[in-house]
Amino acid sequence: MADPTPVQAGADAAGTAPSGADPVEIARSLIRCPSVTPQEGGALACLEGMLGAAGFTVHRVKLTGPDTPDVENLYARFGTKGPNLCFAGHTDVVPPGDPSHWRFPPFEGAIHGGMLYGRGAVDMKGGVAAFVAAGIDFAHSHGGAASEGEMAPGSISFLITGDEEGPAINGTEKLLRWLADRDERLDHCVLGEPSSRAVLGDMVKIGRRGSLSGTLTVHGKQGHVGYPHLAENPIPGLTKLLAGLYGEPLDGGNTHFQASNLEVVSVDVGNPAYNVIPAEARARFNVRFNELWTPQTLAAEIEKRLRDAAGNSVRWSVDFEARSSDSFLTAPGAFVELAVEAIAQATGQRPELSTTGGTSDARFIKDYCPVIEFGLVGTTMHAVDESTPVAEIQALTRVYAGIIERYFATFGR
Amino acid sequence: MADPTPVQAGADAAGTAPSGADPVEIARSLIRCPSVTPQEGGALACLEGMLGAAGFTVHRVKLTGPDTPDVENLYARFGTKGPNLCFAGHTDVVPPGDPSHWRFPPFEGAIHGGMLYGRGAVDMKGGVAAFVAAGIDFAHSHGGAASEGEMAPGSISFLITGDEEGPAINGTEKLLRWLADRDERLDHCVLGEPSSRAVLGDMVKIGRRGSLSGTLTVHGKQGHVGYPHLAENPIPGLTKLLAGLYGEPLDGGNTHFQASNLEVVSVDVGNPAYNVIPAEARARFNVRFNELWTPQTLAAEIEKRLRDAAGNSVRWSVDFEARSSDSFLTAPGAFVELAVEAIAQATGQRPELSTTGGTSDARFIKDYCPVIEFGLVGTTMHAVDESTPVAEIQALTRVYAGIIERYFATFGR
Ligand SMILES: [Zn+2]
Ligand SMILES: [Zn+2]
Repeated sequence: MADPTPVQAGADAAGTAPSGADPVEIARSLIRCPSVTPQEGGALACLEGMLGAAGFTVHRVKLTGPDTPDVENLYARFGTKGPNLCFAGHTDVVPPGDPSHWRFPPFEGAIHGGMLYGRGAVDMKGGVAAFVAAGIDFAHSHGGAASEGEMAPGSISFLITGDEEGPAINGTEKLLRWLADRDERLDHCVLGEPSSRAVLGDMVKIGRRGSLSGTLTVHGKQGHVGYPHLAENPIPGLTKLLAGLYGEPLDGGNTHFQASNLEVVSVDVGNPAYNVIPAEARARFNVRFNELWTPQTLAAEIEKRLRDAAGNSVRWSVDFEARSSDSFLTAPGAFVELAVEAIAQATGQRPELSTTGGTSDARFIKDYCPVIEFGLVGTTMHAVDESTPVAEIQALTRVYAGIIERYFATFGR
Repeated sequence: MADPTPVQAGADAAGTAPSGADPVEIARSLIRCPSVTPQEGGALACLEGMLGAAGFTVHRVKLTGPDTPDVENLYARFGTKGPNLCFAGHTDVVPPGDPSHWRFPPFEGAIHGGMLYGRGAVDMKGGVAAFVAAGIDFAHSHGGAASEGEMAPGSISFLITGDEEGPAINGTEKLLRWLADRDERLDHCVLGEPSSRAVLGDMVKIGRRGSLSGTLTVHGKQGHVGYPHLAENPIPGLTKLLAGLYGEPLDGGNTHFQASNLEVVSVDVGNPAYNVIPAEARARFNVRFNELWTPQTLAAEIEKRLRDAAGNSVRWSVDFEARSSDSFLTAPGAFVELAVEAIAQATGQRPELSTTGGTSDARFIKDYCPVIEFGLVGTTMHAVDESTPVAEIQALTRVYAGIIERYFATFGR
């Protein structure tokens, strides 16, 4: 749709970047691509150009599936040996809403008062730009295009999807399978989602809670409000069952995890008439759960609570969504420790090791290799005037460069 | 739409009717008019023809209002003196659904095995036909068209709406005001809705509970399920408030009335996402209440219960619908007693004096004169294969004729 001019690595003359590749200009180039899910918008073409020029082998992978739009994805690697340190992220963004509500056009990449504005500035074109810049610098320092990475102590790769903000069907999950089918091994992964809470470096995510969703239906019998004895209103039963679901806390959490939490996110009857007792009432719920549960043990607990609350007086059924995700933890150790040190050196912050927040594509990556998440401060993500300090994109680039350096010092051959 | 041939009173040759006008043929003529609300369908034209021929003064009254379809209604009177005994009813019907599900076409008026089939057979073209036949016979026996009713001991009138099954905006309520504006006085009213429960004559309605509807909204704060502490889920609060509403019974009823009853008829959040905590949750409720309450005292009680259940922890608001209706009772006395006697004589049943069931247009009529409801057995109303025994239409005609006779013996001049 757009026709962005790719910034050629090493070709920038801005002079503000701490090293050869300028992450801020890369971020601006990406922001200028209107890559609202599932549109590629030129963002992957932009990356393909600069990574190819820097000596990476680049694969553009279009993934498809029934009932979902086709999505373009990208995998690029520099180096032929293991270990393979992968940086993962996405170039798709959520819609900007009404552009007139923005201080600066959402797909312009304006810089004002030291801040870079635009949709995706923090989630996560800023993060992608930072690790791409760090990766290009790594490639340059190990011979770049000429050597095709044979001199490097291992490999750097980028796993970039265009389907993180959408259904996430034709994105990271399938791309990982596509790689595994080609015997492409990832050894460790850093996902560049905005993990920092208030200042850059204050939090790194080393795991995530799992997620289980379901729908509870209480069955009654339709009738006229004037003759309640001939009908059976399902709403009192639903109220009773929800009280049972909320009942006791699921657990108290543990060292690395918050307590598991159940939220009823919707209750729907959809009866437009005041004089009709409805036949059915439904509640939809989601549980974010820690490693004390699996989706199976949790579903059993939920069914038990519903059974206890219902007794013999409520007819109910529950359906769990097929797409649950398990919790995971990348236990503190050498990989987490080297990331923490790189963060501390570049930002002055000692990051909290956290497993809080929503799910991310790390839920797919953890099935292939240890994964942590570190990136910009997420406060303005998905909002009008999404923005990040330019200096934090530069500092984040130093964090990623520090991770690369320490990674090969620890795991390289 | 249809082109029914009005049955001219006294002109039928069927020989099955106990008197001059044949209520069964009148009912068939009406059923052949497809008068699904708000369509007149020829039904009022049919009545206009036969009542005019019998000496009634007939008014066709088209009533209109913003945002509702125009509706045709009819008022007819025989006699110039008081008292004016009014029979009220409606010729509009609910849609028949898929005609192929019916044993006989819904707008044909088929008679099979002693049963008359068709949409409206019991609700309430059968009832209208019965009181129209009784009224025509009354007119004939007092001189009919020639005398214009001057010889009658009072007046008989018919108040027929085409908007009972619809919004009921352009129907009985406005027609009563239209009459009052013309100083047309009703002294007593019999509404011919299907009041009988199992056999004709087992129940007469001498009042109705009132009806009050409202919407309860609990206000929260939208957020992501992964960060529940940054959001405020309104659903637990709604659950708590509903438990408070259901709490204690509103009352225990009294001699003439059942206990008041509250039903929550819908709960709606409308949140399609499992990962979003919604901002608001709404419940809609309806109370059918007896004469121990007015809409005002009941609304105050509901607000008190919500306040008590909410404490300081739930932000809520409640809106009551403007169109509440008060309860009413036509206290047993001369009018109720003469109706009971007429029912007992024609059916052999001693009817229960009841105030149960849904609202009806009696809620409007009771502001103008005492009103009771008596009609066919309602079991098949609004259903496929709606039908009534032909013999019960004939017996109902004898009930109405008996009411007319006793009425003028008691109240006539
Ligand atoms: Zn993101
Ligand atoms: Zn009716």
